[in-house]
Formats: sequence, C-alpha cells, structure tokens
Amino acid sequence: MAQNIYDNPEFFTGYSQLPRQLRGLDGAPEWPVIRDMLPDLAGKRVADLGCGFGWASRWMREQGAASVVGFDLSKKMIARAKIDTKDTAIEYRIADLDTLELPQSAFDLVYSALTFHYVQNFGRLIREIHAALSPGGDLVFTIEHPIFMAAARPHWITDEDGRKTWPVNRYSVEGERHTDWFVENVIKHHRTMGTTLNSLIEVGFTLRRINEFAPTREQIRQMPELAEEAERPMMLLVSAHKNRD
Amino acid sequence: MAQNIYDNPEFFTGYSQLPRQLRGLDGAPEWPVIRDMLPDLAGKRVADLGCGFGWASRWMREQGAASVVGFDLSKKMIARAKIDTKDTAIEYRIADLDTLELPQSAFDLVYSALTFHYVQNFGRLIREIHAALSPGGDLVFTIEHPIFMAAARPHWITDEDGRKTWPVNRYSVEGERHTDWFVENVIKHHRTMGTTLNSLIEVGFTLRRINEFAPTREQIRQMPELAEEAERPMMLLVSAHKNRD
Repeated sequence: MAQNIYDNPEFFTGYSQLPRQLRGLDGAPEWPVIRDMLPDLAGKRVADLGCGFGWASRWMREQGAASVVGFDLSKKMIARAKIDTKDTAIEYRIADLDTLELPQSAFDLVYSALTFHYVQNFGRLIREIHAALSPGGDLVFTIEHPIFMAAARPHWITDEDGRKTWPVNRYSVEGERHTDWFVENVIKHHRTMGTTLNSLIEVGFTLRRINEFAPTREQIRQMPELAEEAERPMMLLVSAHKNRD
Repeated sequence: MAQNIYDNPEFFTGYSQLPRQLRGLDGAPEWPVIRDMLPDLAGKRVADLGCGFGWASRWMREQGAASVVGFDLSKKMIARAKIDTKDTAIEYRIADLDTLELPQSAFDLVYSALTFHYVQNFGRLIREIHAALSPGGDLVFTIEHPIFMAAARPHWITDEDGRKTWPVNRYSVEGERHTDWFVENVIKHHRTMGTTLNSLIEVGFTLRRINEFAPTREQIRQMPELAEEAERPMMLLVSAHKNRD
C-alpha cells in the first residue's frame, strides 16, 4: 500500500501552497506538453488517477469528456475536490493505486499526474489500467523522472565550472527512496526508465510519445527559476495507446 | 558528417585494446541482453551499422543470417574486418551514417552497437533505416546513454557518503559533446532519451524493449570493476519493430 503522506496536516498545508495547487493546471509548467499528448476528449470516459483537488478532472469535462472519475488516496484532497466541483458527471473516490481495481473496458482515457512514483507495484497497476481501457483507449501520465529520483541524496550540487549539477547514483537499484518534501521521510518508488516503459509494452500498450520535461526559453524568461529544469529532467511524460485488435 | 576518430592512429591503438575488441562479443557485458533482444536470425538479411572489426557481423552469419552488410566510417576497421572474415555472404563497406543511403526494403534486421551517438542527424538516419527494412523487420541498437553523455564534464564524483556518483547537467541541451577518450576531443552528439525514442515512433517503428544496461550480480562477482555501472547507465539498448501494415 502506498504511503498516505498527503493527509499529513503539515504536508497538506505546504503542498496546498504550490503554484500548481493554487493556480491549477496553468501553474504547472509541463501542462502545455501534457495537453498536446492528450487525445480529443469529446465524449470520452476518463479516469484521473491521483486527481488531487480535481483541477484536471474539471478541465477534462470542460473539454467535452462524457464523464470523469477522480481517484485519490488522500481524504483531504478528495474532500476539497468535491467542494470545488459542481459538475455531476465528475465523481471522486478515495483509492490506493496499489490495490485499486477498475471495471473492464470502462474508460477511454486514463490520466495520471505525478502520482505513479508513489505506487509500489507498477506492473500490477498498469495491467489493471490496460484492462480498464476500451480498445483504442489511451493512457497519458506524468511521473517523477528516474534521473531525479535515483540518487541516495538527490539535491543540486555544483560542478568544477560552477554549473548546477544533479547527482545520479543507484540508478539500477529499484525500490524505495526516502526524501524530505514539506515533511521528513516521503516514500517514493524508483524504477528505471526501461522498467517503466517496458511495463507498458509488456501488457500490450503501444508507446506514442515520451517527453522529459524541459522548460521553453519563453517559460524561463517568465520564470527564471525554471532554468535549472534544463539541467536535468524532473518529470517524465508518457502517452501510450491500447490497440483495437 | 561524423568525426572519423577511429582512423586516428593513437585512438585506434587504444580502442583495439578494449576487451570487447580483443575478445569480441563476449568481452561486452551488455551482449547477453542484446542477444535476447535480437529476433531469430535464420535467413535474415542484416545490416550492421558501425560494424567495427566485424565481430557481430560474423556472429549473425553463424546464427543463420542469409547475408550481412557491415558499414563503418573507419578504413582501418573495415580493413581489419575484411582480413578477419572468410565468409563471402558478409560484405563490408566504408560509410558515414550521416550521409548513408540504403536500398528500400533490403534488410530484415538493422543492428548497430555503440555508434549512433556519433551521428549528428539521427532523424534522417532513422528514416533511412525504416525505409531500408522490410515490413516485419527489426531495428536493434545500443547507444551511449544520455545520462552518461549529458554533462559538460562527465566523470565520476563522490557524494557526501562517499558513494560513486555521476553528474548530470545540460540534459535538455542537445548537440555536440566533446570528451577525451584515448585522444582529446572525441565528438559525440547528445540527445535526450525522449528524442531518441520519439524519432523511432515518428517514422513508424513500434518500440519493443528499452534496456538501460546494468550488470548482473554474477557479472559484478566475476568483474568487480563493473559495479559502478549499477550507479548510472552507460548504455541504452533499444529494439523496435517495423509493422507489416
């Protein structure tokens, strides 16, 4: 079972102040890339795994999705999502992605933002998602990049020339990573890029696009603090397709 | 055009002493993984891009390939490959992968080991390879991993705990990397993992398997110097399939 750090009051308070939580999707610099990776949403039945406050769930309905079911482990986040959502075609459920069971062929799109790195048994979840998608359906997700997650002590260091540098070690050693983020000992699960992508291929997904988010020049001009994201990818964005045959 | 460092006498002398050149395929720790990624070779027409001394070209014929054409930019390597090969179904040609043109649907397998990072225009080469493969054909290649190549000064450093650590910076800044390897100023071309994989997808390949080589416990027991390869991947191994439709 995944650690439920989001219901920790101290974590929740800090997390709720992130630009992407205050401003929603436009507060996430990777959002324009994700939007380009999404299929046409008109009439689609969507599952949003790790829906948080429901920003993406509501946006998908605005784009014409027929229905959205948002799942999150955090009671606090689901409670707030429900308060912020008037649309009756959006439903929110508390669920642990490590044990989540979904009905077969019930969704046309499964979307997940920055949640899968909390999942211990990724292979199980991907099988569940593949079965839950209708033929021709899509999976679009973002996850912390393994370059960002791998090291025993992941933090900026400086190279001989004074350049911001990210340390990589233990890359091939998959499993738990313990980091401090708002609170101590947030547990994430490191997997190599190969494992993540092969898990999709093995259950029958066709990979459509792989993006390692880096800010554009324009984004850096507007938010100079984004420049460091060009030095190493923090996020991996993936779209995958379930074939009709 | 790619830099022809392999015909530099000093480079050639150093390179020729690598275990993988002295001992052939069994001197390369990633070889068992590559072998598992290859299709059945019986009757296949194979192109070996960056064939070097021809170790893989000869092995593929031993596995039943109908014919093999090995391409390499280095006159010295092609000359030695010709001397070491008696098999008339293996042909060697001097060629620059940045300008290489291949006949259409002429091969069932395109194989390339640790060569594509010398190629400047990867998109062009991949289109050429896709067109040169028959429907149902495969592309299997290894390339230096972008984690290994990205940094301005790529070399082992030590983290706070004394752990061997690899620096990553400039990851999203694609283009030339200049390193010292046997000689000064060997030119390689860094691309993100996303760019490499999307280049394949965009021309019509289906990704079959992605491996970021890490040594097994048994390999580390036999060759303790391989242990550092578990800290960060040096090589990316990819197999991709050209669909029949």
